Amino acid sequence: MSESRSDAASPRAYQIIARCRELALYSEVAGETTRTFLAPSTHSVHALLSGWMKAAGMQVRVDAAGNLRGVLAGEWPNAPRILIGSHLDTVAQAGAFDGILGVVLGVALVEELTARSHTATTFDPKLPFTIEVIGFSDEEGVRFGKPFLGSLALIGELDAATLLLTDRNGVSVADAIRDFGLDPAELPAAIVDKSACAYLEFHIEQGPVLESEGLSLGVVDTIAGQTRMQFIFTGQANHAGTTPMGAQRRDALAAAAQWIVAVEQYATECAGLVATVGKVETLGGASNVIAGNVVATLDVRHALDKVRRSAIAHFINAAQTAATARGMTVTHSTSLDQTAVDLDSDLTALLADAATRAGHAAHWMISGAGHDAMIVARRVPSAMLFLRTAAGLSHHPDENVLPVDVEAALATGLEFLQILRDDKAMLKRFIALTSQLKQEDNHA
Amino acid sequence: MSESRSDAASPRAYQIIARCRELALYSEVAGETTRTFLAPSTHSVHALLSGWMKAAGMQVRVDAAGNLRGVLAGEWPNAPRILIGSHLDTVAQAGAFDGILGVVLGVALVEELTARSHTATTFDPKLPFTIEVIGFSDEEGVRFGKPFLGSLALIGELDAATLLLTDRNGVSVADAIRDFGLDPAELPAAIVDKSACAYLEFHIEQGPVLESEGLSLGVVDTIAGQTRMQFIFTGQANHAGTTPMGAQRRDALAAAAQWIVAVEQYATECAGLVATVGKVETLGGASNVIAGNVVATLDVRHALDKVRRSAIAHFINAAQTAATARGMTVTHSTSLDQTAVDLDSDLTALLADAATRAGHAAHWMISGAGHDAMIVARRVPSAMLFLRTAAGLSHHPDENVLPVDVEAALATGLEFLQILRDDKAMLKRFIALTSQLKQEDNHA
Repeated sequence: MSESRSDAASPRAYQIIARCRELALYSEVAGETTRTFLAPSTHSVHALLSGWMKAAGMQVRVDAAGNLRGVLAGEWPNAPRILIGSHLDTVAQAGAFDGILGVVLGVALVEELTARSHTATTFDPKLPFTIEVIGFSDEEGVRFGKPFLGSLALIGELDAATLLLTDRNGVSVADAIRDFGLDPAELPAAIVDKSACAYLEFHIEQGPVLESEGLSLGVVDTIAGQTRMQFIFTGQANHAGTTPMGAQRRDALAAAAQWIVAVEQYATECAGLVATVGKVETLGGASNVIAGNVVATLDVRHALDKVRRSAIAHFINAAQTAATARGMTVTHSTSLDQTAVDLDSDLTALLADAATRAGHAAHWMISGAGHDAMIVARRVPSAMLFLRTAAGLSHHPDENVLPVDVEAALATGLEFLQILRDDKAMLKRFIALTSQLKQEDNHA
Repeated sequence: MSESRSDAASPRAYQIIARCRELALYSEVAGETTRTFLAPSTHSVHALLSGWMKAAGMQVRVDAAGNLRGVLAGEWPNAPRILIGSHLDTVAQAGAFDGILGVVLGVALVEELTARSHTATTFDPKLPFTIEVIGFSDEEGVRFGKPFLGSLALIGELDAATLLLTDRNGVSVADAIRDFGLDPAELPAAIVDKSACAYLEFHIEQGPVLESEGLSLGVVDTIAGQTRMQFIFTGQANHAGTTPMGAQRRDALAAAAQWIVAVEQYATECAGLVATVGKVETLGGASNVIAGNVVATLDVRHALDKVRRSAIAHFINAAQTAATARGMTVTHSTSLDQTAVDLDSDLTALLADAATRAGHAAHWMISGAGHDAMIVARRVPSAMLFLRTAAGLSHHPDENVLPVDVEAALATGLEFLQILRDDKAMLKRFIALTSQLKQEDNHA
């Protein structure tokens, strides 16, 4: 299945890509793009984005968590607020689009609206909602080992313990905020305005699904839950030449290999499950020594927590089976257990509708990676639009997006805002939903 | 099957163990036993052994390859020469017995003969052969990455290329010889005397077979051939969360794991074969990234070269099958391909006979590890006697031998010499064999 679209992308789409590539030049490591939480180069990124935002008529501030926030005021004070955002930080040796594309697209949407209000007589410049474009300061979690610092601050969940986390130089989150010229005491003012009723995030897919389907866009309905574990197989290091095969060997690597095969097989047979042993280390291993100790990681994700938990139980059992058969032991520990997050079904349906109106297939997807929308969704109805990623390649300098796909995302975003502008009942429903979320939270 | 021996070991057996432990104190690293080719601590080891040798009536010299050589002259000049030896170097963080036990046992055999000639009227002090006890300077190959430097010098095969090899400090073999106070130009004088007609090596088994059979001794008939290889599986590093299972993954670790399982299974089903993947590395791996590159070692050994070669072909094929199934590639390289060495069948039969006369089961064994006897056998008929190793544990500070097993080896060695002393025809046969080996070599 392939969309056959001959339309060339607009200058705006090329501009969006060029801006992302320009922003990627600001890095804490020369010659690559590496920009962790509030690295000094973030000042330059803020300056460029602020310039574009202000030129589009937005009010700009940087909140105490280092999130860049540009506001295009609606037609009346306290109008319902539509948030559009993603993150400005990167992994090490990153590409130019993961995160920042969603922010640049948000700015471009505002620019499109503003430009139309200047030039078109058919387009009503007055908006029944405020638009706030947010560039989150941290989603990758590289600097402090904890992701989502920016979006947690937005929903008021950047707690004291997190502020005390330190980076590898012993600098705390609170110090990093101060070093950047901000004041942690003002974090309460970073919390999202009560008027916020919808959050929209554009993000590259970072996977091969859209490309293999020949599609530009994906509408995310769920962000998969995720478990990260470590398994340690303990056998007996021994001479590879003098120890016969069979019961006299307690080969930790053979046991781990049997387990890895079992993990892959189970995951392949279970729809929607991904399970990955990404890293294996033979501690003190040598080519002529039977491995005595093997450490292996496990990463498991699924949209349904029940399926993920059941898979984990199976994998633990498979590890024990492989170890016991060789008179060995295996231990396991869990470093992350994150439940799946369903995005808002109404807002997601609206986004799919917008994609269709813009002439694109609304392909429903699970996100296998975590995103800011996962955090924001706790307080504000949220939706996510994926853009096709060339070769599924992300977290890599060669990360790329196609201009036609950026064009498609832009058109979908405009339709999304248009629907909300035209359908007042729809907008009111999200306002009601939001206040319901807030009440649930107060009761929790 | 278990030998039930109530006899306590003799003081001589305890002395042998005590001497090995004393020699283990001389190390190039404080607090452990690490003594590579001609490390300064080797001077102390030579001094101690020389002292014991001289006290037993031997002439002692250190040849230009750093081999310690003690000679107990036979009853006439140019009497046939029986060599007894093993190596004085160690691996890093070694135990006290690997190698050196064979040298200390050789000295003890001479001491026993000398002592009997002084005290017993029934024992003929005159020997129809010369005994040369040799402590080889290098068998482990740790310092220069090439093993058997000592025994290669003994048979005249320490070539110019080897002398130019350098250690990690850039010191060549020739320099190391000079630094030890020796002269590489005198290497020809290190070549074994033409009168040599038999080589006997005592060595710990370094494996669990004798212990599991409840036996003190093993008579080695073949030293297994050995292949060491490296396999590199190349897939595609990718996001563990966003890349579905199946065709869109090219998981190098999953392929390697499937192969490791296949290697283990084939080796388990093939009698006498050992095959070990000892070390695996996921290059640039992370818990949330599908492994793109995996390097794995392979060590394969068997007494029959044909069986080993056929196994290698199967393992290469299995690697290609695992890789191809995932749209990946795999390359392999061979760093060692050593053919099996059959020890001399007549001398080995004589050794088995000696063990039986000493009251011990003559358990025939394959040696899975390489030994000096493998090199010496190219010029001199050779035999090897294994001593049980506690828990099969070797190349480890906890390496151990039992006094009763040392007693058994000593008694077997005495019987071995006694048979040769009494059976002149036997001795002549080995002399004839040796000259035949030398002629074959000249024709080669």
